Amino acid sequence: MKRIADSTVRRLSLYLRFLEDFEQRGLETISSDELARRGGTTSAQVRKDLSFFGSFGKRGLGYSVAELSSRIREIMGLAREWRVIIVGAGKIGAALAQYRGFFQRGFHIAAVYDSSPEKIGRSWDSHTIRDIRNLERDTAANPPDIAVLTVPAEAAQATLDRIVAAGIKAVLNFAPVQLQAPADVTVRTVNMAMELEALSFALTSREG
Amino acid sequence: MKRIADSTVRRLSLYLRFLEDFEQRGLETISSDELARRGGTTSAQVRKDLSFFGSFGKRGLGYSVAELSSRIREIMGLAREWRVIIVGAGKIGAALAQYRGFFQRGFHIAAVYDSSPEKIGRSWDSHTIRDIRNLERDTAANPPDIAVLTVPAEAAQATLDRIVAAGIKAVLNFAPVQLQAPADVTVRTVNMAMELEALSFALTSREG
Repeated sequence: MKRIADSTVRRLSLYLRFLEDFEQRGLETISSDELARRGGTTSAQVRKDLSFFGSFGKRGLGYSVAELSSRIREIMGLAREWRVIIVGAGKIGAALAQYRGFFQRGFHIAAVYDSSPEKIGRSWDSHTIRDIRNLERDTAANPPDIAVLTVPAEAAQATLDRIVAAGIKAVLNFAPVQLQAPADVTVRTVNMAMELEALSFALTSREG
Repeated sequence: MKRIADSTVRRLSLYLRFLEDFEQRGLETISSDELARRGGTTSAQVRKDLSFFGSFGKRGLGYSVAELSSRIREIMGLAREWRVIIVGAGKIGAALAQYRGFFQRGFHIAAVYDSSPEKIGRSWDSHTIRDIRNLERDTAANPPDIAVLTVPAEAAQATLDRIVAAGIKAVLNFAPVQLQAPADVTVRTVNMAMELEALSFALTSREG
């Protein structure tokens, strides 16, 4: 498969949300114009995005909502379940685990880890926080698919190295630090404080 | 001031974190090599990033940690306090308000709003959730600087329109939808579910 740009993947996620909204409202077809308008893009871009994955839709009739949403779910790997571990049972980890919306699309929390004696053994919903020392043993037979990394910045690289050694190939990092990983491991970094700082910068540079 | 790329702003945020770490450890200078290594970039890039904002550092001596961190805080508008409102007292809003780390750098929560009768009047730490109908009246005299938008997708554009009309110029949007705003309003969108979906896509396209 051709290399797909991150911006395309992001739009596919958006299209899927609109398609599911249409499904819930009982609508059977959607035009590229409607997808474009709701995704903040052009209908030419919508057609180009979807053309990566084969041919959809009939000219003048639009796309079948059921067919297109099922195909996008398949393309994005959302028709299956992914096993996720949360490494770092701090405030961000807790916020993520509490927000079930993050995990509604087949993202299933398999385990939560921490290194702090005060946290290990405590209950988080249906999970008991496990000692990070168990990570390698727990994952040896059947590595989880995704690790959500919510440890402090100074522990992030060493923890990522262990996650990588455990055979996990996808990481969502919340530590405010750039991490090094082998080419076959995908690491995405989310940092809310940095988003706010970017807004602060935008406000400041506008005033200047 | 020249238009600064988003990636540069992101690196400034990272540099600031390393500088503060150095400050705490009592170190007085830092080299562009050290900043580069920790920021996952090159020392040439570090020097280029910092040169946007004037001249720093002395060849062979590195940067003064105190001077550079203070200058970056000033550049990014982090030497002052920003008034933030949270619009939408759902799970994401609650997770954000609970995670004080988001608000440690001068981001002060001025008020929390919701439209749901079950939520209005409830207490969130030191805030009582206010009826969104008060938004215009509350902000008329002294608009907040930043709105964090955590309403459902279908309400996001209409709510953003009210935020814009209230004179707020920076918005951090957590609704999974592309929003339209005037050119003088900066909107940044964060979507954790979409980050997980991008990982799902990366894992799927690698297997295929």
